[in-house]
Amino acid sequence: MSTPPDTGPATPHPQDREAGEGQKLWGGRFSAKPDALMQAINVSIEVDRRLWGQDLQGSRAHCRMLARQGIISQADADLILSGLDQIEAEIEGGAFPFRAEFEDIHMNVEARLAELIGPVAGRLHTARSRNDQVATDFRLWVREACDRSIQMIRDLQGALLDKADAHAASLMPGFTHLQPAQPVTFGHHLMAYVEMLGRDAGRFADARTRMNESPLGSAALAGSPFPLDRDMTAEALGFDGPMANSLDGVSARDFALEALAAASICAGHLSRLAEELVIWTTPQFGFVRLSDAFSTGSSIMPQKRNPDAAELVRAKTGRISGALVALSTVMKGLPLAYSKDMQEDKPPVFEAFDAMEVALAATTGMIRDLSINADRMAAAAGAGFSTATDLADWLVRELNLPFREAHHVTGRAVRRAEELGVGLADLPLEDLKALEPGVTMDVYAVLTPAASAASRTTYGGTAPEQVRRQIAAWKARLEDERR
Amino acid sequence: MSTPPDTGPATPHPQDREAGEGQKLWGGRFSAKPDALMQAINVSIEVDRRLWGQDLQGSRAHCRMLARQGIISQADADLILSGLDQIEAEIEGGAFPFRAEFEDIHMNVEARLAELIGPVAGRLHTARSRNDQVATDFRLWVREACDRSIQMIRDLQGALLDKADAHAASLMPGFTHLQPAQPVTFGHHLMAYVEMLGRDAGRFADARTRMNESPLGSAALAGSPFPLDRDMTAEALGFDGPMANSLDGVSARDFALEALAAASICAGHLSRLAEELVIWTTPQFGFVRLSDAFSTGSSIMPQKRNPDAAELVRAKTGRISGALVALSTVMKGLPLAYSKDMQEDKPPVFEAFDAMEVALAATTGMIRDLSINADRMAAAAGAGFSTATDLADWLVRELNLPFREAHHVTGRAVRRAEELGVGLADLPLEDLKALEPGVTMDVYAVLTPAASAASRTTYGGTAPEQVRRQIAAWKARLEDERR
Amino acid sequence: MSTPPDTGPATPHPQDREAGEGQKLWGGRFSAKPDALMQAINVSIEVDRRLWGQDLQGSRAHCRMLARQGIISQADADLILSGLDQIEAEIEGGAFPFRAEFEDIHMNVEARLAELIGPVAGRLHTARSRNDQVATDFRLWVREACDRSIQMIRDLQGALLDKADAHAASLMPGFTHLQPAQPVTFGHHLMAYVEMLGRDAGRFADARTRMNESPLGSAALAGSPFPLDRDMTAEALGFDGPMANSLDGVSARDFALEALAAASICAGHLSRLAEELVIWTTPQFGFVRLSDAFSTGSSIMPQKRNPDAAELVRAKTGRISGALVALSTVMKGLPLAYSKDMQEDKPPVFEAFDAMEVALAATTGMIRDLSINADRMAAAAGAGFSTATDLADWLVRELNLPFREAHHVTGRAVRRAEELGVGLADLPLEDLKALEPGVTMDVYAVLTPAASAASRTTYGGTAPEQVRRQIAAWKARLEDERR
Amino acid sequence: MSTPPDTGPATPHPQDREAGEGQKLWGGRFSAKPDALMQAINVSIEVDRRLWGQDLQGSRAHCRMLARQGIISQADADLILSGLDQIEAEIEGGAFPFRAEFEDIHMNVEARLAELIGPVAGRLHTARSRNDQVATDFRLWVREACDRSIQMIRDLQGALLDKADAHAASLMPGFTHLQPAQPVTFGHHLMAYVEMLGRDAGRFADARTRMNESPLGSAALAGSPFPLDRDMTAEALGFDGPMANSLDGVSARDFALEALAAASICAGHLSRLAEELVIWTTPQFGFVRLSDAFSTGSSIMPQKRNPDAAELVRAKTGRISGALVALSTVMKGLPLAYSKDMQEDKPPVFEAFDAMEVALAATTGMIRDLSINADRMAAAAGAGFSTATDLADWLVRELNLPFREAHHVTGRAVRRAEELGVGLADLPLEDLKALEPGVTMDVYAVLTPAASAASRTTYGGTAPEQVRRQIAAWKARLEDERR
Repeated sequence: MSTPPDTGPATPHPQDREAGEGQKLWGGRFSAKPDALMQAINVSIEVDRRLWGQDLQGSRAHCRMLARQGIISQADADLILSGLDQIEAEIEGGAFPFRAEFEDIHMNVEARLAELIGPVAGRLHTARSRNDQVATDFRLWVREACDRSIQMIRDLQGALLDKADAHAASLMPGFTHLQPAQPVTFGHHLMAYVEMLGRDAGRFADARTRMNESPLGSAALAGSPFPLDRDMTAEALGFDGPMANSLDGVSARDFALEALAAASICAGHLSRLAEELVIWTTPQFGFVRLSDAFSTGSSIMPQKRNPDAAELVRAKTGRISGALVALSTVMKGLPLAYSKDMQEDKPPVFEAFDAMEVALAATTGMIRDLSINADRMAAAAGAGFSTATDLADWLVRELNLPFREAHHVTGRAVRRAEELGVGLADLPLEDLKALEPGVTMDVYAVLTPAASAASRTTYGGTAPEQVRRQIAAWKARLEDERR
Repeated sequence: MSTPPDTGPATPHPQDREAGEGQKLWGGRFSAKPDALMQAINVSIEVDRRLWGQDLQGSRAHCRMLARQGIISQADADLILSGLDQIEAEIEGGAFPFRAEFEDIHMNVEARLAELIGPVAGRLHTARSRNDQVATDFRLWVREACDRSIQMIRDLQGALLDKADAHAASLMPGFTHLQPAQPVTFGHHLMAYVEMLGRDAGRFADARTRMNESPLGSAALAGSPFPLDRDMTAEALGFDGPMANSLDGVSARDFALEALAAASICAGHLSRLAEELVIWTTPQFGFVRLSDAFSTGSSIMPQKRNPDAAELVRAKTGRISGALVALSTVMKGLPLAYSKDMQEDKPPVFEAFDAMEVALAATTGMIRDLSINADRMAAAAGAGFSTATDLADWLVRELNLPFREAHHVTGRAVRRAEELGVGLADLPLEDLKALEPGVTMDVYAVLTPAASAASRTTYGGTAPEQVRRQIAAWKARLEDERR
Repeated sequence: MSTPPDTGPATPHPQDREAGEGQKLWGGRFSAKPDALMQAINVSIEVDRRLWGQDLQGSRAHCRMLARQGIISQADADLILSGLDQIEAEIEGGAFPFRAEFEDIHMNVEARLAELIGPVAGRLHTARSRNDQVATDFRLWVREACDRSIQMIRDLQGALLDKADAHAASLMPGFTHLQPAQPVTFGHHLMAYVEMLGRDAGRFADARTRMNESPLGSAALAGSPFPLDRDMTAEALGFDGPMANSLDGVSARDFALEALAAASICAGHLSRLAEELVIWTTPQFGFVRLSDAFSTGSSIMPQKRNPDAAELVRAKTGRISGALVALSTVMKGLPLAYSKDMQEDKPPVFEAFDAMEVALAATTGMIRDLSINADRMAAAAGAGFSTATDLADWLVRELNLPFREAHHVTGRAVRRAEELGVGLADLPLEDLKALEPGVTMDVYAVLTPAASAASRTTYGGTAPEQVRRQIAAWKARLEDERR
Repeated sequence: MSTPPDTGPATPHPQDREAGEGQKLWGGRFSAKPDALMQAINVSIEVDRRLWGQDLQGSRAHCRMLARQGIISQADADLILSGLDQIEAEIEGGAFPFRAEFEDIHMNVEARLAELIGPVAGRLHTARSRNDQVATDFRLWVREACDRSIQMIRDLQGALLDKADAHAASLMPGFTHLQPAQPVTFGHHLMAYVEMLGRDAGRFADARTRMNESPLGSAALAGSPFPLDRDMTAEALGFDGPMANSLDGVSARDFALEALAAASICAGHLSRLAEELVIWTTPQFGFVRLSDAFSTGSSIMPQKRNPDAAELVRAKTGRISGALVALSTVMKGLPLAYSKDMQEDKPPVFEAFDAMEVALAATTGMIRDLSINADRMAAAAGAGFSTATDLADWLVRELNLPFREAHHVTGRAVRRAEELGVGLADLPLEDLKALEPGVTMDVYAVLTPAASAASRTTYGGTAPEQVRRQIAAWKARLEDERR
């Protein structure tokens, strides 16, 4: 082992390790070979092998910097870089020997490098510790995960925008308490999710910006006595610069917690849409139909179409929230700098982003394929005297009735319509005049669901013209971003 | 161990399924083949293959009951049972073809059975649904996990009892706020964990008892029109009886939540002990030494012995709490009976019990191997006028001083000892008499740490005789249980 | 109700404490008086005043024991007991001076006792520490909270049983994936919750049994040198006996975690029912109607009845799960014995049980008042060829068709019924015979929803006779318990 | 402070409301008066009264806009504004009649306004709904809470910077696994927290920026038919502009979740520092001493100084994480737009920020008052051959030894020093030369802890010059911010 005193990541898959190997790793001071169980909990290669790409990236950047700073010779650097290329080829080709006895991805790569290029391999670890190495690799992974999530959110927003565009004026009931409250348009409803997702993308982007500092060069915890150029490695890895405190560099995991929090909030948004899809696809609602690709059915009950994809999206929220709690609990009360507890940082993050990505992709697919039963939605939008508030507002606005008085008149109008068995839009003018003499024919212009929706023209309101304006604005914004 | 590169999710994505197969599964009513993504989220075989043993158990019990009730012929039953035997042999021998296109373990077994014995395989599914099948299998798994945890807790209690026995009278500081407060014995301290673990085992046992009802026979959700004998299958599977409501049978997951809660509380206890081990093994404390098997070291810093195992045990708490939150969140607000969300019940449970078992085993190993630095602990137990409360208690008990007065005298005695640079046990009698004339030589019998500890003879107190009584009682209890 | 403005924290900040008082409490060794902020975080009287009843109970038990053991005189004990009676009267009468400068309920009572009876008050604290006192008080509170929850669960079960009894044969669709799957009865559906709640009560009962040991006599942490009779105080407080380890006595909080876990699981069950009520009361479903007392409406939209109570019950799950996470996080990694962190044990427990009780009471009220729209439920139960599986089962059972073949025939029958625009029960016999010649008139006995439900007579099935049997069994069980 | 006994929930139960009042609120369509229980769960005034300031702010902005847009007359507006002023005065003076029968703060204000100015009060609610009103008020509150947290973080960073400045060169052991690993400076260690807190402030700031859009004008959910000027109200309330979708406006709570996530991560950082303070103040470590104001002591054990404030800070993490879980759970799967569940958004947020603020203030106080035992820390920094890696690095750097060879030599040097009973810095040159002939006197320049620390001059390293540079940079940054 050629590392500063403390490094020591790693989980499972305890094949037997020979006595000599334990000694090689831990320097011969331990009389007994590591217990099989200890190995079981120490080995993490099955989890952290996913970091192989980031590990190679980091090693290349470190190697080139060491050479430029004269800490290792250019010839040694070239040999190391060619070895790393060979390792990459082996991994991509499926030929790389992942071995539990080397505990984690970092030591697997290091050991393989030594096999390929000999003792020069050891020079790669000059002025680097597993502590800053693993912090760098993991940070790179989380950064990429944030980038992927942002991209997938953009795709989902695109699908929502297309569907909203097609249904900017399609009526549906706007719900409160899952009870129809006022007519809105389906496009308007979908655009609410475009807004939420916009903020979700913003959270991932902010997390990404904040985490985009390089821990590399923090060494074990105290920095290094070698003349490292931390700016050079930071730049090579796409970081905005090096982290300013080496203890913080190896011990910080708030970047992962912030990414998990962003994922958890985003998953919560998806769970709301998923819940709506589950409800809307019941025969009782019948508002929308999921495509065959995103539902499962019964061979003998043709009407039964189970919204499996929506249910799974809804369930993923649990997994992601659980991951956030898991890592928060791990980090609570940990003294600086590195503690072995922090090896438990990767499983929750990997699981959460796997869940996040499947949830985003499935939601995008469901929305893209969604069929709308516009007639049923429109009928539901008009039921239950849903334009009663429009009548009241009209009385306030046009006749200048006080609010309470307007509500009183409206309540009586609704009762009269109930008696006659008609909707408000079909209530004879004389009946309205009997309740409030000032009412004119103009009132009927607000009493249909379509008129109600069309009247809500304030910024952000459900009037189709407003909805289309928001769609256009978002399309332009996403278009800009793509350029 | 050599494996192909893994750049994506740890949960393998299903291979492509041919169009015809989707149709076979879903009965030809879906025009499009399931989307690859949908498959990705639908397929659970990589997770639920761990249920293969329980699935075979459940199928055998169901098959035998169907035959005895005359629902299928004995010949068909025999054929099915022999097919199940063959499948078991294949799985144990590593030859079983786990296939993503059959989604989960239940359909993998069913499909393989059909390949092995032909269409008769289909009769196994008579009067059974995947809903009650999966509920049964999972319940069996969780029941076994509880049993394993109880056994491992017993092992850990055994290790603690042995160590407590050896140190029933070894002095250490009893801490409050991590500040030494009063002398206790190391055995007494360890016995506190024996008590906690006793309750932990009780929680797993209660969960086990409560969950030990059979969902089998609930069918899809409404029960079955076939003349099933649910008592027979329940008995065959070791259940106390069948569940009394079929909707509950397929939709209940509180058994898993209760097991997770028990695990979470137990993990919390282990985290407290782990924290103490981390602190006690610092050079500053130096109370105990972990064996080589449970620590890692540095090749060049001989004193540095990292308590990796203790740190990992402490971290596992996060994973287990996170699993509880994950499943609680999944189940929140789910309408009856089965929803696809519930497929997300297994990953958190499997992960939590994997963590639980590794944490219990590692703690048992650490305790079994633990070396005690009795001298350092005893010295620490005596520092800081740790018997001041004993002096105060003596003044109350023997001289009948009011509490407040006794404390006043004690405070002055401590100050006098500080002035003289001695401990309380070495403070001359005349100094004590000067503060309170009634003091006699007898007082010295309570002023050493050993005397202090020995004096606390109330039930549950730290007096070695008390500690030994508790050790004996627990040993007898565990001995009884083993019989 | 008129109160001063509250711009700051809900937990009132303590008033300034005079220098002398801090010194009284901490014995004059601290040169500075406690910082106002420190006081703010230290003072818990606004939270723990709820423990006043338990504190008096514990003090009386301790006092009587001290006297019987001769540790204090009977005269002193009588004086103390009369002082405690007076304090109780003051608190019940609203005259007790709760004072922030005495930090918590325990010291408020102690200080008031001294004011009332003079220095003898100090003797009550003989051989007792705030550590075992607070552990005892809190345990008593949690025990009572469990008892209350059990009683409220029994009430809710009673309401469910009555409603189930009235609707043991009322048809409704049994759902999977919120899609109608098979007909069940409304009584059967409600009985699923009776089962869940039965287990919930069992969890509270188990928690209660496990926690029912007395910490009193553990003293600060090490037990006591006084000749305490811990059995006597345990018995006086209704405990099964004293805790066996004094360190455990003052540091254990698993009893609170277990009670929170039971509450969290129970709240999850209530959230499922609440979700169903929210969905069932939509105009689209229209299955049930909440009473006016448990919904809110709109003055002008008569049909809009918001299921507020159901929504709040559903939301309480969050609060209770959050409380469990809060306390789990607090306890993670705490060394023995007492740490100040543990003062944060009470807020989550108090909040969780307040939420638990309001959720149980509201659910009981909603169920008791619930009106059923039996016609709409029955119609929904019959829609969508919901008896298709009954036809398939009949073909297997009566004609011995293999499962797959039976499904094939059924699928074609459904398609034929679709073509004819009729339900399965109205499909002419000749059409069925054309698909499978063996079919007879008998088949119609299973093709109506009522027949389907009635046929599921296995134990726990939805057949009304089965449902009534379960109702009767539960009524008898609850009746027994009341006796 | 004297208050009536509280045997029940902390949230006061509403008094009985007269039949007529329920009817006034809900418009007379409900035949029964609200159940007392329903009232108990519905009334939120005890919680949301904290929003009174925000509610007045929002109402003033809305009122002025209504007048400018000609929706209400200027005279009415003036009357309303004067009424609001009077209400503010009443609340600030403690004379405002908070009444449970008006449920929440919004209706309390509205009802009081009607009492003060008569029916014109009703015009304030024109084109506004409680849905957008409460969303606006709560958003304003959370925004202010973020601002307060940022300010308090800046104060804490200031305290850390001052302490770090004073100890930029004070040696202490840098820990990994809580085992001393390499010498660092105390200033360097504290600066790690300055970095963490810098990111914490960034998270609050990002959350604040993202949430800074006005929901006002969203009305019930669909926007308004009145000619509102949403930009005007947004500006008046300090928002960057109005939210672009009215459904989103009333249903979004991600702003609160993001603020809670930021608080949870920040609390995690504070818990790490708090844990260190608890450990460092043990007599075994003795690195630092908390001021009297932030510890509690024992009247008779002078050495015992309990780090209560640090423990409470550590515990607050639980409360804040629990709040995040609570609200995440509440929001999971909620359909749009407003559901009553969302009333449960305020308690966790209020509690979390109360906890956050007390934790930040207490930490600031502790750091400001902290005394350092520099000698003990320096001694600990030099123990255990803590400069062994420095020797190895020197051999690599100066003699160009391969890493592995350098470690081999170092290991033998350490063993030789152990034999001689000296530290590495005191090992005779001949002994070193015997192991590696190239060693010169220069090596001693790296073998003391001070030299080791001084040598780590890379950016972010522990060399005092580096630490001072970071301190200066942060001081300048905070200074800039203040300007």
